[in-house]
Amino acid sequence: MFSERLKSLVPYTPGEQPQDRKYLKLNTNENPYPPSPRVRDVLQDLDIERLRLYPDPMSTRLREKLAVKWGLKQDQVFVSNGSDEALSFCFYAFFGSERGKVLFPEVTYSFFPVYCSFYGIQYETVPLNDDFTLDVGRFVEKGGCGVIFPNPNAPTGIEVPLGKVISLLENYPADRVVVIDEAYIDFGGETAACLIDKFPNLAVVRTFSKSMSLAGLRLGFVLAHEKLVSALFTVKDSFNSYPADTLAQLIGETALSDEGYYRAITHEIIATRDGFARKLAELGWHILPSKSNFVFARKRGVEGREVYLRLKDRGILVRHFDLDKIREFVRITIGKKKDMDRLLDEIRALF
Amino acid sequence: MFSERLKSLVPYTPGEQPQDRKYLKLNTNENPYPPSPRVRDVLQDLDIERLRLYPDPMSTRLREKLAVKWGLKQDQVFVSNGSDEALSFCFYAFFGSERGKVLFPEVTYSFFPVYCSFYGIQYETVPLNDDFTLDVGRFVEKGGCGVIFPNPNAPTGIEVPLGKVISLLENYPADRVVVIDEAYIDFGGETAACLIDKFPNLAVVRTFSKSMSLAGLRLGFVLAHEKLVSALFTVKDSFNSYPADTLAQLIGETALSDEGYYRAITHEIIATRDGFARKLAELGWHILPSKSNFVFARKRGVEGREVYLRLKDRGILVRHFDLDKIREFVRITIGKKKDMDRLLDEIRALF
Repeated sequence: MFSERLKSLVPYTPGEQPQDRKYLKLNTNENPYPPSPRVRDVLQDLDIERLRLYPDPMSTRLREKLAVKWGLKQDQVFVSNGSDEALSFCFYAFFGSERGKVLFPEVTYSFFPVYCSFYGIQYETVPLNDDFTLDVGRFVEKGGCGVIFPNPNAPTGIEVPLGKVISLLENYPADRVVVIDEAYIDFGGETAACLIDKFPNLAVVRTFSKSMSLAGLRLGFVLAHEKLVSALFTVKDSFNSYPADTLAQLIGETALSDEGYYRAITHEIIATRDGFARKLAELGWHILPSKSNFVFARKRGVEGREVYLRLKDRGILVRHFDLDKIREFVRITIGKKKDMDRLLDEIRALF
Repeated sequence: MFSERLKSLVPYTPGEQPQDRKYLKLNTNENPYPPSPRVRDVLQDLDIERLRLYPDPMSTRLREKLAVKWGLKQDQVFVSNGSDEALSFCFYAFFGSERGKVLFPEVTYSFFPVYCSFYGIQYETVPLNDDFTLDVGRFVEKGGCGVIFPNPNAPTGIEVPLGKVISLLENYPADRVVVIDEAYIDFGGETAACLIDKFPNLAVVRTFSKSMSLAGLRLGFVLAHEKLVSALFTVKDSFNSYPADTLAQLIGETALSDEGYYRAITHEIIATRDGFARKLAELGWHILPSKSNFVFARKRGVEGREVYLRLKDRGILVRHFDLDKIREFVRITIGKKKDMDRLLDEIRALF
């Protein structure tokens, strides 16, 4: 009963959300702090009559506020139902095998090959260096029909410094799009959003799920040249004209207004991460240098899967990827300090 | 900078949402009544801490409640970000040109050809009868790789009686999927949801936007055999793993609990529609028999576009489609009785 294109799909597997018992969830990079208290106020004051009407299909007010925040024009901002939807639309609009393969890192967000399969796009991965850093020069060498990578990379947490991003953009063909997924950039990385006016082939994808603590809301956005944004609108209007709902737009606007709160919790997460990484290193673990709200770590002589299973047994969820080159590692989301202390205690006892 | 597939896209045009002045909006088939008051309660009681976590990617509780309501199993229910997303996934999963063209009515939801263009699916339209009714026997004659139609049809509002739906399912190849978009079914039509256990190739698409008065929420769902639902999950997990956000799931569950309220407002809309149609007919207009929350009407000797423009000038928005066979008509959403009385007064004065 199914189309041919369905038969070859291998869907993405999100981090588990088990219902059987209460876990300390350090497996899906959620923020340990609640969203801004202003979100509560806006929900309590909401006139539910608004919900009977369709949302603004253009997310105009939210895009205005995002544009102001990044010093861009409103038509350089696109809003989506989570950054996953934005990424999917980028694959559709910008990458096509008629001009070569799309390039992304060998170790990266595991949804990328899934999007390729969804739209029938060929891809090629570029290897990372032995220390898991990304040499963007390899994208330039290979060419391809476009480039996509997360910065910081997932699940390594390692940043590509802004200087190297600039070097990539200066040397990559100007008629091929470079998409940078900055889901984790607020935890210590340097955003490429400042480069949008200079490089019309750059698209920066962002999310409210991580540093804004609104994963439950499904709100993402893209900052890019107006021509790229216009292409994303064409895709949206060929798929689902109203992807971001009224509450998501409203709560997104509200959260943006509370920069002080978010600066404070982000600072706290960074401090907790650096303290946790130091203590874990003291226990003999190898931790990749993280600019994100997670660390990617391994203990020589212990399988990553075993770490995952033994911690799960103790009521703590971390994420293990059964993939070449990263099989030894687990990805640990940074929670509150007391969460990480509990994890350290368990690790001391178990390994 | 763009993919080949992007270049041929002609996106859907949603009904206008002008910001320049306050209009009586009878153009996008929104419900004139607010959602259940319980929606306000649930928003006021919400612990916003929940929003820091990803939503349940399976919408488990909402699917359970929908399953109970329709006497189905939970794995016969799929939940989406608006029914537009569900429809898009149906095109992806069920229709492919390798087995022929997908069939839909000549006059129908104008998003259908857009989905075909988005995924590169060939389609063929079947003509309506002169009175705009749909002869489902034509789908059987043509075959194709599958069938999709709204019931009641949009923008005509005309229902295909359940007996004819059964006849279609009995005669159409069992290995090809029949998708019925029941966005408007609650306003007087008979749902095909009761046929799901009998016909494993039937998918019924529904929305919370119309009779549930939650267009702002973006919540839709599909009722179908578990194999079809499983295919839709595969598509979802290859596009966006968490399409329905936490608030949408929660509000959807809440709305489902208030059947009495929704029965009352639906009854009111039907009564208003029938009264309005009668009075409009008395003014010499021709109105198609509607089982939806809108009427499709024309006045001989007046262009549909002129009706639309002159009413807009008077502060009332209706929808005009500049398409063959329906150019003479306007589609008028049913508002509250006082809204329709105001419209009747304007029509009396203008035409």
